[in-house]
Amino acid sequence: MADLVGNLLVAQSGGPTAVINASIAGVIQEAGRHEGIEEIYGGLNGIWGILQENLIDLNDEKAKAIEALKSTPAAALGTCRYKLDYKKKPEQAARDMDRLFEVFQAHNIRYFFYCGGNDSQDTAHKIHEQAQARGYDMRIMGVPKTIDNDLPHTDHAPGYGSAIKYAATTVMEIALDIGGMAVEGGACCIIEVMGRRAGWIAAGTALAHRSAADAPHIVLIPEIAFNEEKFLARVKETVSAHGSCIVVVGEGLKNASGSEMAADQSRLDSFGHPVLSGAAEHLEEIVTRKLGIKARSVKLGYAQRAAAHCASLTDVSEAAACGEAAVRNAVEGKSGFMVKIVRLQSDPYKWTTDLQPLGDIANLEHTLPRDWMSEDGFLPNEKFIEYARPLIQGDARVPSDGGLPKYVLLNRTPVEKKLPPRA
Amino acid sequence: MADLVGNLLVAQSGGPTAVINASIAGVIQEAGRHEGIEEIYGGLNGIWGILQENLIDLNDEKAKAIEALKSTPAAALGTCRYKLDYKKKPEQAARDMDRLFEVFQAHNIRYFFYCGGNDSQDTAHKIHEQAQARGYDMRIMGVPKTIDNDLPHTDHAPGYGSAIKYAATTVMEIALDIGGMAVEGGACCIIEVMGRRAGWIAAGTALAHRSAADAPHIVLIPEIAFNEEKFLARVKETVSAHGSCIVVVGEGLKNASGSEMAADQSRLDSFGHPVLSGAAEHLEEIVTRKLGIKARSVKLGYAQRAAAHCASLTDVSEAAACGEAAVRNAVEGKSGFMVKIVRLQSDPYKWTTDLQPLGDIANLEHTLPRDWMSEDGFLPNEKFIEYARPLIQGDARVPSDGGLPKYVLLNRTPVEKKLPPRA
Repeated sequence: MADLVGNLLVAQSGGPTAVINASIAGVIQEAGRHEGIEEIYGGLNGIWGILQENLIDLNDEKAKAIEALKSTPAAALGTCRYKLDYKKKPEQAARDMDRLFEVFQAHNIRYFFYCGGNDSQDTAHKIHEQAQARGYDMRIMGVPKTIDNDLPHTDHAPGYGSAIKYAATTVMEIALDIGGMAVEGGACCIIEVMGRRAGWIAAGTALAHRSAADAPHIVLIPEIAFNEEKFLARVKETVSAHGSCIVVVGEGLKNASGSEMAADQSRLDSFGHPVLSGAAEHLEEIVTRKLGIKARSVKLGYAQRAAAHCASLTDVSEAAACGEAAVRNAVEGKSGFMVKIVRLQSDPYKWTTDLQPLGDIANLEHTLPRDWMSEDGFLPNEKFIEYARPLIQGDARVPSDGGLPKYVLLNRTPVEKKLPPRA
Repeated sequence: MADLVGNLLVAQSGGPTAVINASIAGVIQEAGRHEGIEEIYGGLNGIWGILQENLIDLNDEKAKAIEALKSTPAAALGTCRYKLDYKKKPEQAARDMDRLFEVFQAHNIRYFFYCGGNDSQDTAHKIHEQAQARGYDMRIMGVPKTIDNDLPHTDHAPGYGSAIKYAATTVMEIALDIGGMAVEGGACCIIEVMGRRAGWIAAGTALAHRSAADAPHIVLIPEIAFNEEKFLARVKETVSAHGSCIVVVGEGLKNASGSEMAADQSRLDSFGHPVLSGAAEHLEEIVTRKLGIKARSVKLGYAQRAAAHCASLTDVSEAAACGEAAVRNAVEGKSGFMVKIVRLQSDPYKWTTDLQPLGDIANLEHTLPRDWMSEDGFLPNEKFIEYARPLIQGDARVPSDGGLPKYVLLNRTPVEKKLPPRA
């Protein structure tokens, strides 16, 4: 196949991770090795920014800044949650798609890389289909990322390993802290982690559980309906045995009727409206009231997807490799695929990248297999541990400046606009 | 002065920190250098355990384990919040004191080191006075620790530097995360940190604020009454200017009438009882409801005092030095003092240790000087920054094992009991 010559556009979408910028660095560094790729542009805030023709010139960034992206969390290009929603807003979606191709053509974009989760892969897929339908010669690749690890077909998603390395480290530290406190009647700490539909992050903290006494003692995931009675019995049992109990809960924990614990309608705020309190807060309350055990909660929130200071070196390497593979394959003529990570073996861990058609990704969710959890549903088992263990290996060193991590901000030299503003 | 020959007892008390074990390591390593000190014992769970004669033989621990204490968070000897409360429970306190001296005598304890915050220094002071009153020749020293930094007379307390290094790192990472998200109408994240009476930790996150655009944009401390109107105006202003607003709040934030925001009585839980929600949650609610700005909260909780993976090397060194100084001074004949850190200069930072009579510590609280905050009370100023900057310098490297920090647990070889059980 003859080389496709033109410009490259890369953008990020959805919730950031600690390593999403490593994928962008991979794209940029690999792009520099191919003559067919002329300009290297970044789209600010995903397709939302591309629709406004907000492009920046990544060739204008210093090579050191690009390398530093590998240890900088969050989305250096900005992200968005904007969708091409053909179902609910077909006219807007059609107009947006036209506009996207106007931008692509105006800037001779022939390589487009979109780094994100399920929704972003769906967007990339739609753009790929449209490129074909419009006969516009462009190579489109999806680059995976999500701390939630709910992308199908890839063994795991870049961003996940770092999220669980941080969360497991935090669980270990909190457990030591509480374990050293002599509290009559014991103590319980409930740590809420992200994961509205899948329990991957909560489960990942089980990497800190190396013996029965180790935290986490209980892991609650959205895939398994919460049973209050059994939960309280287990907390009581654990406190009796070990003096304290560390519970990790995925924010999307559901009761037997399938509604989220966090959406408890019985609490009212000072305006008299129902409060959407967190799952951890709810558990904290029942442990305190019903067992009389001192309970505290921790809510890691955004911290867990941005904690590059505790990133997994394996994760950083894989994220960068996914970006590189996207470019390499596109240059070789491939289009319409998401790069995926393929595990060759777990111990010692070996992996490679491969491609999956973008059409296979959309609307498929990858949840935690039931048989990777213990029979009682309270802890991941050895199958999960074997899966997750390799993903947190190695410490990604972040350069420091004045005692704090030294993260890079791009210069963001704007690419001159060539189109009238978006209608 | 003739050498006092006998055994040493060291114990920890109060809330743990990331470096309280470094002080214990300092005590043990220094003790090993003095012939007058025979056995080196640890009291489990502070005086509460000493009252039960729960002593362990620290000479029996491996030298490597003692060194590893310097990078292990939480209280390796266990802590307690047990007080000798002569005011409220004078008979119990008198009985406890008798029992303590029975234990000291039974084990020929001639050196006693108590590592903790205000209450623990008060306990050490009472024991010192009693030793003199009873004519029992013993050297008693307090070793400072508290993430809250509210100990008087010492420039700062070991534990504080690591807590703010971790909290400031987290603020920086969350700010990058949110800054990259394109949210129409902006976004606000409220990060709650510890500090019921003093705003030292909240203020410490300002080390991440190096330019107007940098987070934290607003720091709320218990020393300055919360003004909702001015707060909301500042959030709005910040979101307009920077697209997002990061607020750090000390858990003990108070309103104009002096009651804690967290103790808002207008919320009811599912049992119909008032909820003690967190300060962050309260702010999240008013930002959402009154400004219509998307708000999220993060509650670091116990994680912030245990995050040894992000500890300050300066803090670790100072904590160890405080333990060493306690032993060195006791061997030289001193008793009844707390070791304190004295700042010689800020830039370049130079410090040393000195002694303060234990009687000067009790019931004195060290709060943030009002003139270390901006006039509007929303951000620490350059005076605070100059003070805090040196305390987070250097990264304490934690050895890792399987991708997680390698923390040490002591063997805790019990010392044979010589007394009948406590009544």
